[in-house]
Amino acid sequence: MKDKQTLMKEGPNMQDYTTMSPHDVRALIREETITGQTSGMCAGYAQANLVILPKALAYDFLLFTQRNPRSCPLLEVSDTGSRTLREIAPGADIAKDIPRYRLYRNGNLEGEYTDVSPLWQDDFVSFLIGCSFSFEAELLEAGVPVRHIEEGCNVPMYKTNIPCAPAGVFHGNMVVSMRPIPHELIPRAVLVTGDMPRVHGAPIHIGSPEIIGITDIYQPDFGDMVTIRPGEVPVFWPCGVTPQNVVMESRPPIAITHAPGHMLITDIKNTELKY
Amino acid sequence: MKDKQTLMKEGPNMQDYTTMSPHDVRALIREETITGQTSGMCAGYAQANLVILPKALAYDFLLFTQRNPRSCPLLEVSDTGSRTLREIAPGADIAKDIPRYRLYRNGNLEGEYTDVSPLWQDDFVSFLIGCSFSFEAELLEAGVPVRHIEEGCNVPMYKTNIPCAPAGVFHGNMVVSMRPIPHELIPRAVLVTGDMPRVHGAPIHIGSPEIIGITDIYQPDFGDMVTIRPGEVPVFWPCGVTPQNVVMESRPPIAITHAPGHMLITDIKNTELKY
Repeated sequence: MKDKQTLMKEGPNMQDYTTMSPHDVRALIREETITGQTSGMCAGYAQANLVILPKALAYDFLLFTQRNPRSCPLLEVSDTGSRTLREIAPGADIAKDIPRYRLYRNGNLEGEYTDVSPLWQDDFVSFLIGCSFSFEAELLEAGVPVRHIEEGCNVPMYKTNIPCAPAGVFHGNMVVSMRPIPHELIPRAVLVTGDMPRVHGAPIHIGSPEIIGITDIYQPDFGDMVTIRPGEVPVFWPCGVTPQNVVMESRPPIAITHAPGHMLITDIKNTELKY
Repeated sequence: MKDKQTLMKEGPNMQDYTTMSPHDVRALIREETITGQTSGMCAGYAQANLVILPKALAYDFLLFTQRNPRSCPLLEVSDTGSRTLREIAPGADIAKDIPRYRLYRNGNLEGEYTDVSPLWQDDFVSFLIGCSFSFEAELLEAGVPVRHIEEGCNVPMYKTNIPCAPAGVFHGNMVVSMRPIPHELIPRAVLVTGDMPRVHGAPIHIGSPEIIGITDIYQPDFGDMVTIRPGEVPVFWPCGVTPQNVVMESRPPIAITHAPGHMLITDIKNTELKY
């Protein structure tokens, strides 16, 4: 591997991000060298979705995550007003260490930012939720291909007709991510991911997109479409974009999330999350 | 098995409770035929600890459970003011279907009750937390003895020096349950229980009570002492009495819990909690 100086001069490529430490990649994100999606970076380390809400809505949202552990496996909740985390990424700045954020006011997308520190409020609570990017290193290791990594793009994500359990003001349907899997490798993909419930675990659906309300597999609601080859079946996992989709429907005065696919890379190895 | 009429006349014994359905045992609890501890009842079904708090403290407590999943694996949270559950025991009455409750005011134990419906408040939120009684059927099936079931008493429980992660007003140390295990069966006991994280999972300590701050193994803080035979080692699991111990230290105006060992028996099989 190249030393960091060379890396910085040449501009690191995807291969370098795969083997770099979370700490070093977060530093490149903080200085805005990296502003793109994070799939494949820091292989073996868990990645996390972000939802920031005012304290007034935090109880209902925390209850929502408790009632919907498949789509909202909670990795950490900040103290009110704090931009730091204790467990999953000590030293990280919640307001700067994600490549791209979305700001919503009253449920409307107001803009995307690479740094939300100027928007910070004393009553903000940050929720970090497991992300299926985390288990992709384990899929690859088990010989299961991950198409959006091969094609260097974001994972395709879809809104479904699968209802979440409501909690307080929050209700809505699940969002899923999709990976096309060679049909003979599907049991292996289920077993590998089923062993990692804190980053979404086993698939929620295999094979027939229309059953879960996806009318056009070629038009994802978030992320990029990937190639589905002959002999491959679309496999769907619960997605951490679910809570931001649900939160937006309740039109909170302000909410900040990551942009889909642009995650917090944590210091926690996926294997640590099993226990 | 005897029919219910005969059972009621004779007074059912422990063997009958082991194989009875959760629904039927809860009915006997509601009518106060059963007022004792529930270890061994309804083998294979998850049992749950209870903490009831006013809504004003519910966010801090929910956050406490999120930060301490080993001692506080949350199975369900009621809607505010509701005495019913959706997921783990539909049809159960939270205020009547536990054999024995404890009422605390300002952190002081005021009394024990078999029915807390006269005390109910519109702002009560009920937290149901996994209990290690749940995995005892699996231990027995794997050939691991469970001494307090053999001796027909409550499990011994101890306060420790293991700090919980604080959340808001709540902080304090973990409470553990203890089972003496023949030394050669300890790996098996770890593997069987480690597979069931939502009912406390693997042991938190094996072998040296003094390391975790237990000075006299023969004086449990809750429950009953059991025999430790030659060749057996005390094994300690995180216990759902932890949150009630922690809650009491914060001296809420009112709190209701189960009495240690006197659990809610749910309709959820332990095996369902794995996925």
